[in-house]
Amino acid sequence: MTLEPSAGRIEGREHLLPVRVYFEDTDFTGIVYHGAFVRFLERGRSDYLRLADVRHAALLDQGQALTLVRLEADFKRPARIDDALLVRTRFEAVKGARLTIGQQVLRGDDLLVEARVEAVLIGLDGRPRRPTPVMVAAIRPLLF
Amino acid sequence: MTLEPSAGRIEGREHLLPVRVYFEDTDFTGIVYHGAFVRFLERGRSDYLRLADVRHAALLDQGQALTLVRLEADFKRPARIDDALLVRTRFEAVKGARLTIGQQVLRGDDLLVEARVEAVLIGLDGRPRRPTPVMVAAIRPLLF
Amino acid sequence: MTLEPSAGRIEGREHLLPVRVYFEDTDFTGIVYHGAFVRFLERGRSDYLRLADVRHAALLDQGQALTLVRLEADFKRPARIDDALLVRTRFEAVKGARLTIGQQVLRGDDLLVEARVEAVLIGLDGRPRRPTPVMVAAIRPLLF
Amino acid sequence: MTLEPSAGRIEGREHLLPVRVYFEDTDFTGIVYHGAFVRFLERGRSDYLRLADVRHAALLDQGQALTLVRLEADFKRPARIDDALLVRTRFEAVKGARLTIGQQVLRGDDLLVEARVEAVLIGLDGRPRRPTPVMVAAIRPLLF
Repeated sequence: MTLEPSAGRIEGREHLLPVRVYFEDTDFTGIVYHGAFVRFLERGRSDYLRLADVRHAALLDQGQALTLVRLEADFKRPARIDDALLVRTRFEAVKGARLTIGQQVLRGDDLLVEARVEAVLIGLDGRPRRPTPVMVAAIRPLLF
Repeated sequence: MTLEPSAGRIEGREHLLPVRVYFEDTDFTGIVYHGAFVRFLERGRSDYLRLADVRHAALLDQGQALTLVRLEADFKRPARIDDALLVRTRFEAVKGARLTIGQQVLRGDDLLVEARVEAVLIGLDGRPRRPTPVMVAAIRPLLF
Repeated sequence: MTLEPSAGRIEGREHLLPVRVYFEDTDFTGIVYHGAFVRFLERGRSDYLRLADVRHAALLDQGQALTLVRLEADFKRPARIDDALLVRTRFEAVKGARLTIGQQVLRGDDLLVEARVEAVLIGLDGRPRRPTPVMVAAIRPLLF
Repeated sequence: MTLEPSAGRIEGREHLLPVRVYFEDTDFTGIVYHGAFVRFLERGRSDYLRLADVRHAALLDQGQALTLVRLEADFKRPARIDDALLVRTRFEAVKGARLTIGQQVLRGDDLLVEARVEAVLIGLDGRPRRPTPVMVAAIRPLLF
Protein backbone atom coordinates (compact mmCIF):
# COMPACT_ATOMS: atom_id res chain seq x y z
CA MET A 1 0.00 0.00 0.00
CA THR A 2 1.24 3.42 -0.93
CA LEU A 3 0.60 6.55 1.12
CA GLU A 4 -0.95 8.42 -1.77
CA PRO A 5 -4.75 8.73 -1.75
CA SER A 6 -6.17 6.36 -4.37
CA ALA A 7 -7.70 7.96 -7.44
CA GLY A 8 -9.48 4.67 -8.17
CA ARG A 9 -8.95 2.83 -11.43
CA ILE A 10 -10.16 2.66 -15.02
CA GLU A 11 -11.63 -0.65 -16.16
CA GLY A 12 -12.49 -0.64 -19.84
CA ARG A 13 -14.23 2.71 -20.21
CA GLU A 14 -15.47 2.95 -16.68
CA HIS A 15 -13.88 4.54 -13.65
CA LEU A 16 -14.23 2.89 -10.24
CA LEU A 17 -13.58 4.81 -7.00
CA PRO A 18 -13.88 3.19 -3.55
CA VAL A 19 -15.39 5.52 -0.94
CA ARG A 20 -15.81 5.03 2.81
CA VAL A 21 -18.83 6.33 4.77
CA TYR A 22 -17.69 8.50 7.71
CA PHE A 23 -19.56 10.40 10.48
CA GLU A 24 -19.71 13.50 8.26
CA ASP A 25 -21.75 11.60 5.64
CA THR A 26 -24.57 10.34 7.87
CA ASP A 27 -27.60 12.08 9.38
CA PHE A 28 -29.81 11.61 12.47
CA THR A 29 -32.06 9.10 10.68
CA GLY A 30 -29.08 6.71 10.85
CA ILE A 31 -28.35 6.59 7.12
CA VAL A 32 -26.22 8.49 4.60
CA TYR A 33 -27.52 12.01 3.85
CA HIS A 34 -28.43 12.44 0.17
CA GLY A 35 -26.07 15.42 -0.03
CA ALA A 36 -23.18 13.11 0.85
CA PHE A 37 -23.92 10.95 -2.20
CA VAL A 38 -23.77 14.14 -4.29
CA ARG A 39 -20.24 14.72 -2.92
CA PHE A 40 -19.24 11.07 -3.59
CA LEU A 41 -20.33 11.46 -7.23
CA GLU A 42 -18.16 14.56 -7.61
CA ARG A 43 -15.14 12.69 -6.20
CA GLY A 44 -15.68 9.98 -8.82
CA ARG A 45 -15.79 12.50 -11.67
CA SER A 46 -12.75 14.39 -10.37
CA ASP A 47 -10.64 11.25 -9.97
CA TYR A 48 -11.62 9.94 -13.42
CA LEU A 49 -10.46 13.26 -14.90
CA ARG A 50 -7.32 13.08 -12.73
CA LEU A 51 -6.40 9.70 -14.26
CA ALA A 52 -7.07 11.25 -17.69
CA ASP A 53 -4.61 14.00 -16.72
CA VAL A 54 -7.21 16.76 -16.50
CA ARG A 55 -6.47 18.66 -13.24
CA HIS A 56 -8.83 21.26 -11.75
CA ALA A 57 -5.88 23.39 -10.60
CA ALA A 58 -4.34 23.39 -14.09
CA LEU A 59 -7.70 24.31 -15.65
CA LEU A 60 -8.05 27.25 -13.26
CA ASP A 61 -4.55 28.45 -14.18
CA GLN A 62 -5.93 28.71 -17.74
CA GLY A 63 -8.95 30.62 -16.43
CA GLN A 64 -11.29 27.64 -16.78
CA ALA A 65 -13.33 25.40 -14.50
CA LEU A 66 -15.76 22.51 -14.90
CA THR A 67 -19.13 23.29 -13.39
CA LEU A 68 -22.31 21.24 -13.02
CA VAL A 69 -25.32 22.37 -15.03
CA ARG A 70 -27.63 19.42 -14.40
CA LEU A 71 -27.88 16.61 -11.85
CA GLU A 72 -30.42 13.80 -11.86
CA ALA A 73 -30.17 11.18 -9.13
CA ASP A 74 -32.32 8.26 -7.98
CA PHE A 75 -31.65 7.18 -4.41
CA LYS A 76 -32.64 3.52 -4.38
CA ARG A 77 -31.17 2.02 -1.22
CA PRO A 78 -29.67 3.56 1.93
CA ALA A 79 -26.00 3.36 2.99
CA ARG A 80 -24.75 3.40 6.57
CA ILE A 81 -21.74 4.41 8.69
CA ASP A 82 -18.56 2.38 7.95
CA ASP A 83 -19.95 1.11 4.60
CA ALA A 84 -17.44 0.53 1.80
CA LEU A 85 -18.98 1.96 -1.38
CA LEU A 86 -17.93 2.09 -5.01
CA VAL A 87 -18.57 5.04 -7.34
CA ARG A 88 -18.76 3.98 -11.02
CA THR A 89 -18.40 6.75 -13.63
CA ARG A 90 -18.84 6.73 -17.42
CA PHE A 91 -18.24 9.69 -19.72
CA GLU A 92 -21.11 9.32 -22.17
CA ALA A 93 -20.80 12.26 -24.54
CA VAL A 94 -18.94 15.52 -25.24
CA LYS A 95 -20.96 18.01 -27.26
CA GLY A 96 -19.63 21.57 -27.57
CA ALA A 97 -18.81 22.69 -24.02
CA ARG A 98 -21.03 20.00 -22.44
CA LEU A 99 -19.91 16.67 -20.95
CA THR A 100 -22.61 14.07 -20.15
CA ILE A 101 -21.71 11.59 -17.41
CA GLY A 102 -23.45 8.47 -16.11
CA GLN A 103 -22.72 7.45 -12.51
CA GLN A 104 -23.70 4.83 -9.97
CA VAL A 105 -22.97 4.26 -6.30
CA LEU A 106 -22.80 0.59 -5.34
CA ARG A 107 -22.29 -1.45 -2.19
CA GLY A 108 -21.17 -4.87 -3.36
CA ASP A 109 -23.77 -5.88 -5.95
CA ASP A 110 -26.42 -3.50 -4.58
CA LEU A 111 -27.13 -0.39 -6.62
CA LEU A 112 -27.68 2.46 -4.14
CA VAL A 113 -27.73 5.54 -6.39
CA GLU A 114 -28.13 6.00 -10.14
CA ALA A 115 -27.20 9.43 -11.49
CA ARG A 116 -26.82 11.39 -14.70
CA VAL A 117 -24.80 14.58 -14.67
CA GLU A 118 -24.08 17.33 -17.18
CA ALA A 119 -20.96 19.44 -16.70
CA VAL A 120 -19.79 22.43 -18.69
CA LEU A 121 -16.41 24.07 -19.03
CA ILE A 122 -16.68 27.77 -18.16
CA GLY A 123 -14.33 30.74 -18.24
CA LEU A 124 -13.81 33.15 -15.35
CA ASP A 125 -16.67 35.25 -16.74
CA GLY A 126 -18.97 32.27 -16.07
CA ARG A 127 -19.62 31.72 -19.80
CA PRO A 128 -19.22 28.30 -21.48
CA ARG A 129 -15.89 27.56 -23.14
CA ARG A 130 -15.24 24.92 -25.74
CA PRO A 131 -12.73 22.42 -24.26
CA THR A 132 -9.20 22.76 -25.65
CA PRO A 133 -8.01 20.13 -28.16
CA VAL A 134 -5.73 18.73 -25.40
CA MET A 135 -8.70 18.20 -23.09
CA VAL A 136 -10.85 16.68 -25.83
CA ALA A 137 -7.96 14.36 -26.73
CA ALA A 138 -7.75 13.30 -23.06
CA ILE A 139 -11.45 12.56 -22.69
CA ARG A 140 -12.34 11.27 -26.18
CA PRO A 141 -10.82 7.78 -25.72
CA LEU A 142 -12.75 7.35 -22.45
CA LEU A 143 -16.19 7.98 -23.95
CA PHE A 144 -18.48 5.07 -23.32
CA MET B 1 -36.07 41.10 15.07
CA THR B 2 -36.52 38.01 17.15
CA LEU B 3 -33.66 35.74 18.15
CA GLU B 4 -35.31 32.64 16.75
CA PRO B 5 -33.98 31.37 13.42
CA SER B 6 -36.50 32.22 10.70
CA ALA B 7 -38.37 29.30 9.17
CA GLY B 8 -39.29 31.55 6.24
CA ARG B 9 -42.92 32.21 5.34
CA ILE B 10 -45.79 30.78 3.35
CA GLU B 11 -47.23 32.98 0.59
CA GLY B 12 -50.27 31.45 -1.03
CA ARG B 13 -49.20 27.86 -1.50
CA GLU B 14 -45.49 28.56 -1.74
CA HIS B 15 -42.85 28.59 0.95
CA LEU B 16 -40.08 31.19 0.83
CA LEU B 17 -36.86 30.77 2.83
CA PRO B 18 -34.05 33.36 2.78
CA VAL B 19 -30.58 31.78 2.81
CA ARG B 20 -27.16 33.42 3.10
CA VAL B 21 -24.05 32.15 1.27
CA TYR B 22 -21.19 31.52 3.73
CA PHE B 23 -17.57 30.30 3.34
CA GLU B 24 -18.75 26.69 3.78
CA ASP B 25 -20.93 26.96 0.65
CA THR B 26 -18.32 28.13 -1.84
CA ASP B 27 -15.50 26.32 -3.64
CA PHE B 28 -12.11 27.24 -5.10
CA THR B 29 -13.64 28.31 -8.44
CA GLY B 30 -15.06 31.28 -6.52
CA ILE B 31 -18.72 30.28 -6.75
CA VAL B 32 -21.22 28.24 -4.71
CA TYR B 33 -20.56 24.48 -4.83
CA HIS B 34 -23.50 22.55 -6.37
CA GLY B 35 -23.69 20.40 -3.22
CA ALA B 36 -24.44 23.55 -1.20
CA PHE B 37 -27.52 24.24 -3.34
CA VAL B 38 -28.64 20.68 -2.56
CA ARG B 39 -28.40 21.55 1.16
CA PHE B 40 -30.28 24.85 0.65
CA LEU B 41 -33.13 22.95 -1.03
CA GLU B 42 -33.39 20.59 1.94
CA ARG B 43 -33.57 23.54 4.35
CA GLY B 44 -36.48 24.94 2.33
CA ARG B 45 -38.38 21.63 2.45
CA SER B 46 -37.72 21.18 6.18
CA ASP B 47 -38.85 24.69 7.08
CA TYR B 48 -42.00 24.40 4.94
CA LEU B 49 -42.87 21.19 6.83
CA ARG B 50 -41.98 22.93 10.11
CA LEU B 51 -44.52 25.69 9.40
CA ALA B 52 -47.02 22.91 8.56
CA ASP B 53 -46.23 21.42 11.98
CA VAL B 54 -44.47 18.33 10.64
CA ARG B 55 -41.27 17.94 12.72
CA HIS B 56 -38.47 15.53 11.84
CA ALA B 57 -37.83 14.77 15.52
CA ALA B 58 -41.51 13.95 16.12
CA LEU B 59 -41.58 11.71 13.02
CA LEU B 60 -38.53 9.82 14.28
CA ASP B 61 -40.19 9.30 17.67
CA GLN B 62 -42.91 7.48 15.71
CA GLY B 63 -40.26 5.42 13.90
CA GLN B 64 -40.58 7.38 10.67
CA ALA B 65 -38.42 9.65 8.55
CA LEU B 66 -38.72 11.50 5.25
CA THR B 67 -36.05 10.45 2.80
CA LEU B 68 -35.20 11.60 -0.73
CA VAL B 69 -35.76 9.12 -3.54
CA ARG B 70 -35.19 11.40 -6.50
CA LEU B 71 -33.52 14.73 -7.15
CA GLU B 72 -33.42 16.62 -10.44
CA ALA B 73 -31.70 19.99 -10.51
CA ASP B 74 -30.71 22.47 -13.22
CA PHE B 75 -27.97 24.85 -12.18
CA LYS B 76 -28.57 27.91 -14.34
CA ARG B 77 -26.56 30.73 -12.80
CA PRO B 78 -23.78 30.85 -10.19
CA ALA B 79 -24.08 32.35 -6.69
CA ARG B 80 -21.22 33.90 -4.72
CA ILE B 81 -20.04 34.52 -1.15
CA ASP B 82 -22.26 36.90 0.87
CA ASP B 83 -25.19 36.51 -1.60
CA ALA B 84 -28.70 36.69 -0.16
CA LEU B 85 -30.71 33.90 -1.81
CA LEU B 86 -34.33 32.78 -1.63
CA VAL B 87 -35.47 29.14 -1.71
CA ARG B 88 -39.01 28.77 -3.09
CA THR B 89 -40.79 25.45 -2.39
CA ARG B 90 -44.10 24.02 -3.66
CA PHE B 91 -45.61 20.71 -2.60
CA GLU B 92 -47.00 19.45 -5.90
CA ALA B 93 -48.50 16.04 -5.12
CA VAL B 94 -48.88 13.35 -2.46
CA LYS B 95 -49.41 9.88 -3.90
CA GLY B 96 -49.21 6.92 -1.52
CA ALA B 97 -45.98 7.35 0.44
CA ARG B 98 -44.50 9.76 -2.14
CA LEU B 99 -44.37 13.56 -1.97
CA THR B 100 -43.43 15.50 -5.13
CA ILE B 101 -41.88 18.91 -4.57
CA GLY B 102 -40.93 21.73 -6.95
CA GLN B 103 -38.18 24.09 -5.82
CA GLN B 104 -36.22 27.09 -7.03
CA VAL B 105 -33.27 29.07 -5.74
CA LEU B 106 -33.42 32.75 -6.65
CA ARG B 107 -31.26 35.84 -6.18
CA GLY B 108 -33.57 38.80 -6.64
CA ASP B 109 -35.33 38.12 -9.94
CA ASP B 110 -32.61 35.77 -11.20
CA LEU B 111 -33.41 32.06 -11.21
CA LEU B 112 -30.24 30.22 -10.16
CA VAL B 113 -31.47 26.65 -9.64
CA GLU B 114 -34.63 24.83 -10.70
CA ALA B 115 -35.28 21.51 -8.95
CA ARG B 116 -37.81 18.71 -8.67
CA VAL B 117 -37.61 16.39 -5.70
CA GLU B 118 -39.41 13.22 -4.66
CA ALA B 119 -39.45 12.29 -0.97
CA VAL B 120 -40.87 9.19 0.68
CA LEU B 121 -41.87 8.48 4.25
CA ILE B 122 -40.03 5.38 5.49
CA GLY B 123 -40.11 3.28 8.65
CA LEU B 124 -37.01 2.29 10.63
CA ASP B 125 -36.80 -0.84 8.44
CA GLY B 126 -36.22 1.48 5.46
CA ARG B 127 -39.54 0.50 3.81
CA PRO B 128 -42.08 3.09 2.61
CA ARG B 129 -44.86 4.02 5.01
CA ARG B 130 -48.13 5.65 4.07
CA PRO B 131 -48.24 9.08 5.82
CA THR B 132 -50.59 9.20 8.82
CA PRO B 133 -53.93 11.02 8.39
CA VAL B 134 -52.53 13.81 10.61
CA MET B 135 -49.59 14.33 8.26
CA VAL B 136 -51.77 14.18 5.15
CA ALA B 137 -54.13 16.70 6.76
CA ALA B 138 -51.17 19.00 7.41
CA ILE B 139 -49.78 18.84 3.88
CA ARG B 140 -53.00 18.54 1.81
CA PRO B 141 -53.99 22.24 2.11
CA LEU B 142 -50.51 23.28 0.94
CA LEU B 143 -50.56 21.30 -2.30
CA PHE B 144 -49.98 23.56 -5.27
CA MET C 1 -40.61 39.57 8.44
CA THR C 2 -38.38 40.54 5.58
CA LEU C 3 -37.18 38.11 2.92
CA GLU C 4 -33.53 38.89 3.51
CA PRO C 5 -31.54 36.31 5.47
CA SER C 6 -30.92 37.65 8.98
CA ALA C 7 -27.34 38.61 9.81
CA GLY C 8 -28.26 38.48 13.51
CA ARG C 9 -27.86 41.54 15.72
CA ILE C 10 -25.30 43.36 17.83
CA GLU C 11 -26.14 43.77 21.54
CA GLY C 12 -23.60 45.88 23.36
CA ARG C 13 -20.33 44.46 22.05
CA GLU C 14 -21.64 41.02 21.32
CA HIS C 15 -23.09 39.60 18.13
CA LEU C 16 -26.00 37.15 18.31
CA LEU C 17 -26.91 34.92 15.36
CA PRO C 18 -29.86 32.47 15.47
CA VAL C 19 -29.09 29.19 13.69
CA ARG C 20 -31.40 26.23 12.93
CA VAL C 21 -30.24 22.59 13.02
CA TYR C 22 -31.04 20.85 9.70
CA PHE C 23 -30.51 17.28 8.39
CA GLU C 24 -27.08 18.30 7.04
CA ASP C 25 -25.86 19.16 10.55
CA THR C 26 -26.65 15.85 12.28
CA ASP C 27 -24.94 12.46 12.24
CA PHE C 28 -25.99 8.82 12.73
CA THR C 29 -25.59 9.04 16.52
CA GLY C 30 -28.67 11.29 16.47
CA ILE C 31 -26.94 14.52 17.49
CA VAL C 32 -25.22 17.46 15.78
CA TYR C 33 -21.84 16.57 14.23
CA HIS C 34 -18.99 18.57 15.79
CA GLY C 35 -18.00 19.79 12.33
CA ALA C 36 -21.42 21.45 12.02
CA PHE C 37 -20.72 23.54 15.13
CA VAL C 38 -17.47 24.63 13.48
CA ARG C 39 -19.54 25.89 10.53
CA PHE C 40 -22.04 27.64 12.84
CA LEU C 41 -19.17 29.51 14.50
CA GLU C 42 -17.92 30.72 11.14
CA ARG C 43 -21.40 32.00 10.22
CA GLY C 44 -21.44 33.99 13.45
CA ARG C 45 -18.05 35.58 12.72
CA SER C 46 -19.00 36.36 9.10
CA ASP C 47 -22.30 37.98 10.04
CA TYR C 48 -20.70 40.04 12.80
CA LEU C 49 -18.20 41.34 10.25
CA ARG C 50 -21.06 41.87 7.76
CA LEU C 51 -22.86 44.16 10.26
CA ALA C 52 -19.52 45.95 10.75
CA ASP C 53 -19.42 46.43 6.96
CA VAL C 54 -16.49 44.10 6.38
CA ARG C 55 -17.46 41.91 3.39
CA HIS C 56 -15.50 38.83 2.31
CA ALA C 57 -16.13 39.58 -1.37
CA ALA C 58 -14.84 43.15 -1.00
CA LEU C 59 -11.74 41.91 0.84
CA LEU C 60 -11.02 39.44 -1.96
CA ASP C 61 -11.32 42.22 -4.54
CA GLN C 62 -8.44 43.87 -2.65
CA GLY C 63 -6.50 40.60 -2.75
CA GLN C 64 -7.17 39.81 0.91
CA ALA C 65 -9.02 37.15 2.91
CA LEU C 66 -9.55 36.31 6.56
CA THR C 67 -8.32 32.85 7.40
CA LEU C 68 -8.40 30.80 10.61
CA VAL C 69 -5.05 30.11 12.27
CA ARG C 70 -6.30 28.60 15.53
CA LEU C 71 -9.51 27.02 16.80
CA GLU C 72 -10.18 25.80 20.31
CA ALA C 73 -13.62 24.39 21.10
CA ASP C 74 -15.20 22.62 24.06
CA PHE C 75 -18.30 20.63 23.16
CA LYS C 76 -20.28 20.57 26.40
CA ARG C 77 -23.80 19.47 25.49
CA PRO C 78 -25.32 17.91 22.35
CA ALA C 79 -27.79 19.61 19.99
CA ARG C 80 -30.44 17.81 17.95
CA ILE C 81 -32.42 18.12 14.68
CA ASP C 82 -34.84 21.10 14.59
CA ASP C 83 -33.08 22.83 17.54
CA ALA C 84 -33.02 26.63 17.52
CA LEU C 85 -29.50 27.69 18.53
CA LEU C 86 -27.81 31.01 19.13
CA VAL C 87 -24.19 31.81 18.20
CA ARG C 88 -22.67 34.53 20.42
CA THR C 89 -19.49 36.23 19.14
CA ARG C 90 -17.10 38.70 20.79
CA PHE C 91 -14.09 40.30 19.12
CA GLU C 92 -11.57 40.24 21.93
CA ALA C 93 -8.38 41.70 20.47
CA VAL C 94 -6.69 42.89 17.27
CA LYS C 95 -2.92 42.60 17.34
CA GLY C 96 -1.02 43.14 14.09
CA ALA C 97 -2.72 40.92 11.51
CA ARG C 98 -4.35 38.73 14.17
CA LEU C 99 -7.96 38.93 15.43
CA THR C 100 -8.89 36.97 18.60
CA ILE C 101 -12.53 35.99 18.90
CA GLY C 102 -14.54 34.39 21.72
CA GLN C 103 -17.65 32.43 20.73
CA GLN C 104 -20.40 30.34 22.28
CA VAL C 105 -23.25 28.24 20.94
CA LEU C 106 -26.32 28.27 23.18
CA ARG C 107 -29.75 26.65 23.23
CA GLY C 108 -31.87 28.80 25.50
CA ASP C 109 -29.80 29.11 28.68
CA ASP C 110 -27.76 25.98 27.99
CA LEU C 111 -24.18 26.48 26.86
CA LEU C 112 -23.46 23.84 24.20
CA VAL C 113 -20.09 24.95 22.80
CA GLU C 114 -17.42 27.34 24.07
CA ALA C 115 -14.81 28.39 21.51
CA ARG C 116 -11.83 30.66 21.02
CA VAL C 117 -10.68 31.45 17.51
CA GLU C 118 -7.73 33.31 16.00
CA ALA C 119 -8.08 34.68 12.48
CA VAL C 120 -5.50 36.41 10.34
CA LEU C 121 -5.81 38.64 7.31
CA ILE C 122 -3.73 37.21 4.45
CA GLY C 123 -2.84 38.33 0.95
CA LEU C 124 -3.18 36.16 -2.17
CA ASP C 125 0.38 34.93 -1.53
CA GLY C 126 -0.88 33.42 1.74
CA ARG C 127 1.21 35.79 3.88
CA PRO C 128 -0.26 37.85 6.73
CA ARG C 129 -1.36 41.40 5.93
CA ARG C 130 -1.90 44.16 8.42
CA PRO C 131 -5.61 45.16 8.26
CA THR C 132 -6.25 48.45 6.46
CA PRO C 133 -7.10 51.50 8.61
CA VAL C 134 -10.69 51.24 7.31
CA MET C 135 -10.99 47.68 8.57
CA VAL C 136 -9.38 48.51 11.92
CA ALA C 137 -11.77 51.46 12.25
CA ALA C 138 -14.71 49.11 11.61
CA ILE C 139 -13.67 46.50 14.15
CA ARG C 140 -12.08 48.66 16.87
CA PRO C 141 -15.40 49.91 18.36
CA LEU C 142 -16.66 46.33 18.62
CA LEU C 143 -13.75 45.03 20.69
CA PHE C 144 -14.95 43.51 23.93
CA MET D 1 -4.93 -2.16 -6.07
CA THR D 2 -8.01 -3.42 -4.35
CA LEU D 3 -11.45 -1.85 -4.69
CA GLU D 4 -11.94 -1.41 -0.97
CA PRO D 5 -11.48 2.12 0.38
CA SER D 6 -8.15 2.31 2.21
CA ALA D 7 -8.32 2.65 5.98
CA GLY D 8 -4.70 3.82 5.93
CA ARG D 9 -2.01 1.95 7.87
CA ILE D 10 -0.45 1.70 11.30
CA GLU D 11 3.29 2.42 11.52
CA GLY D 12 4.66 1.82 14.99
CA ARG D 13 2.04 3.48 17.16
CA GLU D 14 0.89 5.98 14.59
CA HIS D 15 -1.88 5.77 12.07
CA LEU D 16 -1.41 7.29 8.62
CA LEU D 17 -4.37 8.04 6.33
CA PRO D 18 -3.95 9.51 2.83
CA VAL D 19 -6.67 12.05 1.97
CA ARG D 20 -7.37 13.85 -1.32
CA VAL D 21 -8.61 17.45 -1.53
CA TYR D 22 -11.81 17.64 -3.62
CA PHE D 23 -14.09 20.55 -4.69
CA GLU D 24 -16.20 20.04 -1.53
CA ASP D 25 -13.17 20.82 0.68
CA THR D 26 -12.19 24.18 -0.80
CA ASP D 27 -13.68 27.65 -0.45
CA PHE D 28 -13.83 30.83 -2.55
CA THR D 29 -10.46 32.07 -1.24
CA GLY D 30 -8.91 29.23 -3.27
CA ILE D 31 -7.74 27.13 -0.33
CA VAL D 32 -9.08 24.34 1.87
CA TYR D 33 -11.83 25.47 4.28
CA HIS D 34 -10.83 24.95 7.93
CA GLY D 35 -13.99 22.89 8.47
CA ALA D 36 -12.71 20.40 5.87
CA PHE D 37 -9.56 19.80 7.94
CA VAL D 38 -11.84 19.08 10.90
CA ARG D 39 -13.53 16.37 8.79
CA PHE D 40 -10.16 14.97 7.64
CA LEU D 41 -9.10 14.61 11.29
CA GLU D 42 -12.26 12.65 12.09
CA ARG D 43 -11.60 10.29 9.16
CA GLY D 44 -8.14 9.61 10.56
CA ARG D 45 -9.50 8.80 14.03
CA SER D 46 -12.27 6.58 12.61
CA ASP D 47 -9.93 4.60 10.39
CA TYR D 48 -7.39 4.13 13.20
CA LEU D 49 -10.21 2.70 15.35
CA ARG D 50 -11.37 0.60 12.37
CA LEU D 51 -7.93 -1.01 12.09
CA ALA D 52 -8.10 -1.61 15.87
CA ASP D 53 -11.44 -3.35 15.25
CA VAL D 54 -13.56 -0.68 16.98
CA ARG D 55 -16.53 -0.02 14.64
CA HIS D 56 -18.95 2.87 15.11
CA ALA D 57 -21.89 0.75 13.95
CA ALA D 58 -21.04 -2.01 16.47
CA LEU D 59 -20.70 0.57 19.26
CA LEU D 60 -24.13 1.99 18.42
CA ASP D 61 -25.65 -1.51 18.53
CA GLN D 62 -24.44 -1.56 22.15
CA GLY D 63 -26.01 1.84 22.77
CA GLN D 64 -22.67 3.67 22.71
CA ALA D 65 -20.96 6.27 20.55
CA LEU D 66 -17.68 8.17 20.60
CA THR D 67 -18.22 11.91 20.70
CA LEU D 68 -15.82 14.86 20.64
CA VAL D 69 -15.58 16.95 23.80
CA ARG D 70 -12.62 19.12 22.88
CA LEU D 71 -10.81 20.15 19.72
CA GLU D 72 -7.71 22.30 19.49
CA ALA D 73 -6.24 22.96 16.05
CA ASP D 74 -3.50 25.18 14.66
CA PHE D 75 -3.81 25.85 10.95
CA LYS D 76 -0.25 26.52 9.85
CA ARG D 77 -0.20 26.28 6.08
CA PRO D 78 -2.96 26.18 3.43
CA ALA D 79 -3.86 23.20 1.24
CA ARG D 80 -5.31 23.43 -2.26
CA ILE D 81 -7.55 21.49 -4.70
CA ASP D 82 -6.07 18.15 -5.89
CA ASP D 83 -3.52 18.08 -3.00
CA ALA D 84 -2.57 14.66 -1.63
CA LEU D 85 -2.52 14.98 2.17
CA LEU D 86 -1.66 12.65 5.02
CA VAL D 87 -3.49 12.53 8.37
CA ARG D 88 -1.26 11.26 11.19
CA THR D 89 -3.02 10.10 14.39
CA ARG D 90 -1.66 9.06 17.80
CA PHE D 91 -3.75 7.81 20.71
CA GLU D 92 -2.03 9.52 23.64
CA ALA D 93 -4.03 8.50 26.71
CA VAL D 94 -7.18 6.73 27.92
CA LYS D 95 -8.41 7.99 31.28
CA GLY D 96 -11.86 6.88 32.45
CA ALA D 97 -14.22 7.54 29.55
CA ARG D 98 -11.83 10.02 27.89
CA LEU D 99 -9.46 9.34 24.97
CA THR D 100 -6.78 11.97 24.18
CA ILE D 101 -5.57 12.02 20.59
CA GLY D 102 -2.77 13.93 18.84
CA GLN D 103 -3.17 14.55 15.10
CA GLN D 104 -1.40 16.25 12.23
CA VAL D 105 -2.23 16.94 8.60
CA LEU D 106 0.80 16.91 6.33
CA ARG D 107 1.56 17.49 2.65
CA GLY D 108 4.87 15.79 2.00
CA ASP D 109 7.18 17.16 4.71
CA ASP D 110 5.06 20.26 5.31
CA LEU D 111 2.99 20.35 8.49
CA LEU D 112 -0.34 21.99 7.62
CA VAL D 113 -2.43 21.37 10.75
CA GLU D 114 -1.52 20.35 14.30
CA ALA D 115 -4.44 19.19 16.46
CA ARG D 116 -5.26 17.75 19.86
CA VAL D 117 -8.62 16.09 20.36
CA GLU D 118 -10.48 14.66 23.35
CA ALA D 119 -13.19 12.10 22.71
CA VAL D 120 -15.54 10.45 25.17
CA LEU D 121 -17.61 7.30 24.98
CA ILE D 122 -21.26 8.13 25.73
CA GLY D 123 -24.45 6.12 26.15
CA LEU D 124 -27.73 6.91 24.38
CA ASP D 125 -28.64 9.17 27.32
CA GLY D 126 -25.63 11.33 26.38
CA ARG D 127 -23.76 10.48 29.62
CA PRO D 128 -20.15 9.25 29.63
CA ARG D 129 -19.60 5.50 29.68
CA ARG D 130 -16.43 3.74 30.72
CA PRO D 131 -15.10 1.84 27.65
CA THR D 132 -15.65 -1.93 27.80
CA PRO D 133 -12.63 -4.14 28.58
CA VAL D 134 -12.72 -5.30 24.92
CA MET D 135 -12.41 -1.71 23.71
CA VAL D 136 -9.67 -0.88 26.21
CA ALA D 137 -7.82 -4.03 25.16
CA ALA D 138 -8.07 -2.91 21.52
CA ILE D 139 -6.78 0.61 22.12
CA ARG D 140 -4.27 0.02 24.96
CA PRO D 141 -1.49 -1.45 22.72
CA LEU D 142 -1.78 1.55 20.38
CA LEU D 143 -1.20 4.21 23.04
CA PHE D 144 1.73 6.39 22.16
